[in-house]
Amino acid sequence: MKDIARPSLGDCMFRPRAVALIGASADPTKNNARPQRYLTEASFAGKIVPINPGRSEIMGLPCYPDLQSVPFDIDHAFIMVPAAAIEDVIDQCGRKGVPVVTIFTAGFAELGEEGLALQKRMVERARAANVRILGPNCIGLINLQGRLPLTANAAVQEEKLRPGPVSVVSQSGSMLGSMLTRAAVRGIGFSKMISIGNEADLSVGEMVSLLAQDEDTKVILLFLETIRDGAALASAAREAFAAGKAVIAYKLGRSALGRQVAASHTGAMVGADELAQAFFRANGILRVETLEALIELPRLIEGHHPPEGRRVGMMTATGGAAAMIVDRLGLYGDTVPEPPEDFRARLAGEGIEISDSPLIDLPMGSSGGGRYTRILSELIASDHCDAVVSVMGSSARSNPQMICERVLNAKIGAKPLAVFLAPQADEGLRILHEAGIAGFRTPESCADAVHAYLNWHKPAVAPDLQEAELAEARRIAAGTNDWDEVKASALFAALGVPVAESRVITVAGGAVEPVSGPAAVKCLSPDILHKSDAGLVALGVSPEAVAGVAGDILRKARAAFPDARLEGVLVQKMEAGLAEVILGYRKDPEVGPVVVLGMGGITAELRPSISVRIAPVDAATAQEMIAEVPELRKLAGFRNLPKGDLAALAEAIARFSRLAVVGGDIAEAEINPLIIREENHGVVAVDGLVAR
Amino acid sequence: MKDIARPSLGDCMFRPRAVALIGASADPTKNNARPQRYLTEASFAGKIVPINPGRSEIMGLPCYPDLQSVPFDIDHAFIMVPAAAIEDVIDQCGRKGVPVVTIFTAGFAELGEEGLALQKRMVERARAANVRILGPNCIGLINLQGRLPLTANAAVQEEKLRPGPVSVVSQSGSMLGSMLTRAAVRGIGFSKMISIGNEADLSVGEMVSLLAQDEDTKVILLFLETIRDGAALASAAREAFAAGKAVIAYKLGRSALGRQVAASHTGAMVGADELAQAFFRANGILRVETLEALIELPRLIEGHHPPEGRRVGMMTATGGAAAMIVDRLGLYGDTVPEPPEDFRARLAGEGIEISDSPLIDLPMGSSGGGRYTRILSELIASDHCDAVVSVMGSSARSNPQMICERVLNAKIGAKPLAVFLAPQADEGLRILHEAGIAGFRTPESCADAVHAYLNWHKPAVAPDLQEAELAEARRIAAGTNDWDEVKASALFAALGVPVAESRVITVAGGAVEPVSGPAAVKCLSPDILHKSDAGLVALGVSPEAVAGVAGDILRKARAAFPDARLEGVLVQKMEAGLAEVILGYRKDPEVGPVVVLGMGGITAELRPSISVRIAPVDAATAQEMIAEVPELRKLAGFRNLPKGDLAALAEAIARFSRLAVVGGDIAEAEINPLIIREENHGVVAVDGLVAR
Repeated sequence: MKDIARPSLGDCMFRPRAVALIGASADPTKNNARPQRYLTEASFAGKIVPINPGRSEIMGLPCYPDLQSVPFDIDHAFIMVPAAAIEDVIDQCGRKGVPVVTIFTAGFAELGEEGLALQKRMVERARAANVRILGPNCIGLINLQGRLPLTANAAVQEEKLRPGPVSVVSQSGSMLGSMLTRAAVRGIGFSKMISIGNEADLSVGEMVSLLAQDEDTKVILLFLETIRDGAALASAAREAFAAGKAVIAYKLGRSALGRQVAASHTGAMVGADELAQAFFRANGILRVETLEALIELPRLIEGHHPPEGRRVGMMTATGGAAAMIVDRLGLYGDTVPEPPEDFRARLAGEGIEISDSPLIDLPMGSSGGGRYTRILSELIASDHCDAVVSVMGSSARSNPQMICERVLNAKIGAKPLAVFLAPQADEGLRILHEAGIAGFRTPESCADAVHAYLNWHKPAVAPDLQEAELAEARRIAAGTNDWDEVKASALFAALGVPVAESRVITVAGGAVEPVSGPAAVKCLSPDILHKSDAGLVALGVSPEAVAGVAGDILRKARAAFPDARLEGVLVQKMEAGLAEVILGYRKDPEVGPVVVLGMGGITAELRPSISVRIAPVDAATAQEMIAEVPELRKLAGFRNLPKGDLAALAEAIARFSRLAVVGGDIAEAEINPLIIREENHGVVAVDGLVAR
Repeated sequence: MKDIARPSLGDCMFRPRAVALIGASADPTKNNARPQRYLTEASFAGKIVPINPGRSEIMGLPCYPDLQSVPFDIDHAFIMVPAAAIEDVIDQCGRKGVPVVTIFTAGFAELGEEGLALQKRMVERARAANVRILGPNCIGLINLQGRLPLTANAAVQEEKLRPGPVSVVSQSGSMLGSMLTRAAVRGIGFSKMISIGNEADLSVGEMVSLLAQDEDTKVILLFLETIRDGAALASAAREAFAAGKAVIAYKLGRSALGRQVAASHTGAMVGADELAQAFFRANGILRVETLEALIELPRLIEGHHPPEGRRVGMMTATGGAAAMIVDRLGLYGDTVPEPPEDFRARLAGEGIEISDSPLIDLPMGSSGGGRYTRILSELIASDHCDAVVSVMGSSARSNPQMICERVLNAKIGAKPLAVFLAPQADEGLRILHEAGIAGFRTPESCADAVHAYLNWHKPAVAPDLQEAELAEARRIAAGTNDWDEVKASALFAALGVPVAESRVITVAGGAVEPVSGPAAVKCLSPDILHKSDAGLVALGVSPEAVAGVAGDILRKARAAFPDARLEGVLVQKMEAGLAEVILGYRKDPEVGPVVVLGMGGITAELRPSISVRIAPVDAATAQEMIAEVPELRKLAGFRNLPKGDLAALAEAIARFSRLAVVGGDIAEAEINPLIIREENHGVVAVDGLVAR
């Protein structure tokens, strides 16, 4: 039965020649009847094939009892049968050679363990049968250019389906409807809208990759509750970036409460928000925090690249509304610089006087005569800012055509331009949208979108590492199963992180070289926890006293823990410096390997101060991380305090982050503390651990 | 000319029998022509009296050359003459006995020093003439019940002026138009809308007081760029609270950038946002941070009181949209508790099963049969939450009547209920509004409004102080001009704050009792700064050595600073404890006296950790302040660390905050550091200053 000229996955997904609706209902009040009705009403050009063993016809179309009875190829099946019947239907799809199915049916992983087991069995069968799955528990997908509303989402019935350049992948099916209806009143259309459901097989990443290759898609929106396959999404986001298509994410789980609810809703584990943020940054994904910015941002950035800085040029004909935006930009840490002198001089030469305040405020009655347009053009051309915000007052409502011409006549295009209309001004927003200009309905979504643009980074480039730099660390990582403090230190040293000078006195004894100064002497045993409490650690031991103290510790350990494995005694040079930090590494199940820089000590536990990046990082990125931990400014010349060796810290972070590429199945590692000495005196790792 | 039955200020302001439009224009394209047109079109019932020396008639109404020519009383004048003519017009108003004028004319304090001087002269003349001023530089005021659009704001022309229970006072004139038009599409109306302009005479506080007494006003909204007269606003907000009228504020200046812009826009100084927050809290004012919440919140809280806790009961028919709200509530620190067991049992008894997740999520198709309504009623009645959020999905658009009935049929009223409609659902929002239910258009404004309610506090009650407790401190404060460390310490001790034991060895010398332990010995001179650098401080001096060290320090000081006034030497007991905090006091020009608790040390400078309240506070409020400084959790039993004497700290904060009531013109004071000892061992002030 297989067609050898079978179309691609993307074609089967978005442009199927024939769609089977398995479990279609003839009862128009049922959700199962919706897809056929929507497809018919949308004038879908391919074949619509209801499958239902009890009917020979549904809504005027021939209905087949099963897939096998269909006398032609099916490119895509939409499955609405009960969960218990799903495995059988997947088998049928395999036999019929259906390459992709969208499963509307719920009752899988979202219900708990039993559902998860059923979902896993289903995916195994599908893999065996070469069937790809979208869903289950998904509301379906819509291709607006292809007039394919393959969905049970009632929103497609409500709205004129207006095609546009923006595609959406959503982990919440109902949000597709919210976005569709909210965009429709603004005249904003979409290309593909995909409900990813439980993401049992096809992932958000794979869909983004398909959209990166989709001609009709220029911007990709993501509504995420969690990140299930970080590697696939990372690679797809980079593919989209390379193709000049921005990826914009709204992600739940900014608060612990939000993570709890998102998790209970989807059955997925969600990590701390800093990890997601690091992931988006590393992969060139923009992030918004308001619902409307998700709809309004695409226009702002279409055709633009990540900015050089975070500086906004801003002008307004109404002070209060503009100040609302400025205030929020300030909270994000963005800036609104004063227009430079030559900028003001140029305008003054044309008889347009502006003040030296950051916000160019044209009082009532002074916006006419081309002045607004002239200043706006100058702002868009000026290199003192990276994006421009223009705020319109009451005339945006009373005379939308006139006010919009003030913007439309400006020289637009050199950088992103956001226009906020202070009053309710639906017509003004429509005019702006039709002219290709990003209009904003609230000061909050405007500031959110502008900040998302300013905080947009090119995908991070992995440091270019020579194999030789990694060889020794690779050897240690591959050859070690039981990690202890000594082996962890050896690994960190092999990566190039300075570690405190140390010796091991084995149980067998024998002379060792003393370390260069007073030492910490510590019992080495994988079985004894809380060594300090047990008196098995001595600090500040002079070189002469080390041998005696070591012997005492071993004797004490043997007496107190007769069954413990005893490896010997660690003699480590005492180290001191200006500050202590923690370096952490973790292979996160969602976003992959990350490196974390944090302050040490108890206060940091109460009020964490950290910076996170996807690992590995280079020293320049490590410098950025250092700048994100406010407490470390103390070591950067603050109040004439002694400077710390932050260059050495950056180098240590970069080298430690190479754990991501040494292999050996390392799941977690930590240096705690890493001591920062005075400038030019380096850093030194005092204690650490590695775990598989 | 004066009418002895002159109406009240509120009546003249909002219900004038005759309004003069001074500087009215006959050219309909001019802003100066608008007020007459708007008043006429609104069918204002009082007399409309254009004043213009060049016309005998404008738009069909008799026009007078000047006020004196008007043959009847004028209750209110709207002034549109150029700034240069303003003083003369005020004089005319005085002679005519006009009790209140609204000045549309700009060109005063907002332009800088010269304008400020003109504004001051104008106010002086007005005071002398018994004329109250609204403005200048204000767009006017609107009384919707009185059909009085006394304004040049074009928004009143655009919209059907729908009366409602909400009044607004705004420091931005144009924001009135934005709010009016945005509310109009929602069917939301207003009572009074007042542009306060430069607030040269009538202040926001005075207007709030008028509105607190206004029968038609149930809720008062404030759009603030700054707080100019904190005392008046505080007292008016309390008056409104007592009258059962909530006051809701949107205030700019949350970020430093925002403060800069707000300041440059109005010419006003603005303090740090923490002060404004403390002010709102102390005076029972709710605060929102989104524009739409300002419009949507009044319905949510009408008839309700400040809550017991910050717990939200939440139910939804669409997971994603509800999770967006939960996530934001979590960022605010609000909670969404799981419904208690008896709650679930009660519903289960009626055949309604809900999960034990915080968010009650009714999947597609399970909202019918009265289930949604039943659960909602139960949530509103339950005492496990303080407010309820109900989220509606696509049917809020496709079938607004049905979905709204699900809410309307519930037992409503026991606590605030917020309804968020996930799709674009204008009709649904209108139905909710007409039914008296608070509907929300975005998840962000919904979370913002709910949080504003949860964070609403009754006006703070000033501690009940006995005169005897203050007598000694009052005496010191009144009798001291030149504050030094010794006098500051005496004042703090008189207030009841423990201070470190100390003695002064005067220049004249003579024996003093030793302090009980090692001492810090420090030169006392108002003229020598940086005493440590000059070697004029010695630490850890034993009792026996004090006399000798004191002599050395005096000799050194005389030699190095021969012209400095030298008062002697301070001998202070060395103190140590578990942590150091800073207590600050300040008479803020905007919000009045505040007390600040902050962590000490350099790290706190880099990453401030403070809590602020309006002073004075009682010990219970001081406990709240302690809880708001995360680092102090270290002293509350964290990780079995020794506990600090936080009870003594609270007592010290409360006593220190009494600076607000001791008099003596104290502008600022600080204890730095205040040392916190172990539990039951108290706190002790080591160093401090007072400034007038």
